[in-house]
Amino acid sequence: MSKKAKGSRAERELFHLLWKEGYATVRSAGSGSTSQPSPDLLASNGSKIFAIECKSIKDEKKYFSADELEQLHIFANTFGAEAWLAIRFDNKGWFFLEAKKIPKSKGKNFLVSYSQLQKEGLQFQEFIGKYMQQRLDCTKDI
Amino acid sequence: MSKKAKGSRAERELFHLLWKEGYATVRSAGSGSTSQPSPDLLASNGSKIFAIECKSIKDEKKYFSADELEQLHIFANTFGAEAWLAIRFDNKGWFFLEAKKIPKSKGKNFLVSYSQLQKEGLQFQEFIGKYMQQRLDCTKDI
Repeated sequence: MSKKAKGSRAERELFHLLWKEGYATVRSAGSGSTSQPSPDLLASNGSKIFAIECKSIKDEKKYFSADELEQLHIFANTFGAEAWLAIRFDNKGWFFLEAKKIPKSKGKNFLVSYSQLQKEGLQFQEFIGKYMQQRLDCTKDI
Repeated sequence: MSKKAKGSRAERELFHLLWKEGYATVRSAGSGSTSQPSPDLLASNGSKIFAIECKSIKDEKKYFSADELEQLHIFANTFGAEAWLAIRFDNKGWFFLEAKKIPKSKGKNFLVSYSQLQKEGLQFQEFIGKYMQQRLDCTKDI
């Protein structure tokens, strides 16, 4: 399977996972080929809005360019969304990391690794459930 | 030009108009071909979120099916967006109408006409400016 086909399949997988959890989600047309910033997925349940850049990889680490991350932040800030990275490792599943938490690497690149995501990343249920927990906590305060 | 190509060109035109006005906008991939509801465009400036169904037509009226409108409302309600119709008439430009304002026609169809849009529709600058006006009014009340 080509890298592009693998990426699209992963996007579609996450698209359906998000819908199942009550997030209205769109896959962006021409992501990577338009002159405007464009996240792979845009999802909201009416309270949280996520702009998500997806990657599906077989290795244990993934570089992001400064430009790719800047485009994601520009989009998210303008739209009023949170910027997240969703990385799917072969045979290990999805991990989620807030885009601002990705560490700098050499030059202008950023690097996210499986070992970092095991510590700081969220799995899908945590990614979704975390905000349910936050909402419960807010209710308590009232 | 095919109907589909004409529709895509109109979507891209509105996509760029919205970005120019400070709305982060995505065109939805597979709109009309996914099992989930999906608007043609999704745009937000961080305060207003629009789920938009676009049409580009040469005639003076356009039918929408009940299903098409229901899908738009389901998406918009789940996402937390307003549902709008954007209709581009050849040589007359864009008109915008809140989806809930489209009148019922025969059977299960809905019908929007150029004459109705001249009265009740908004032109692009009004569509954008209307909300600036509302925000100004809110500020006055404080």
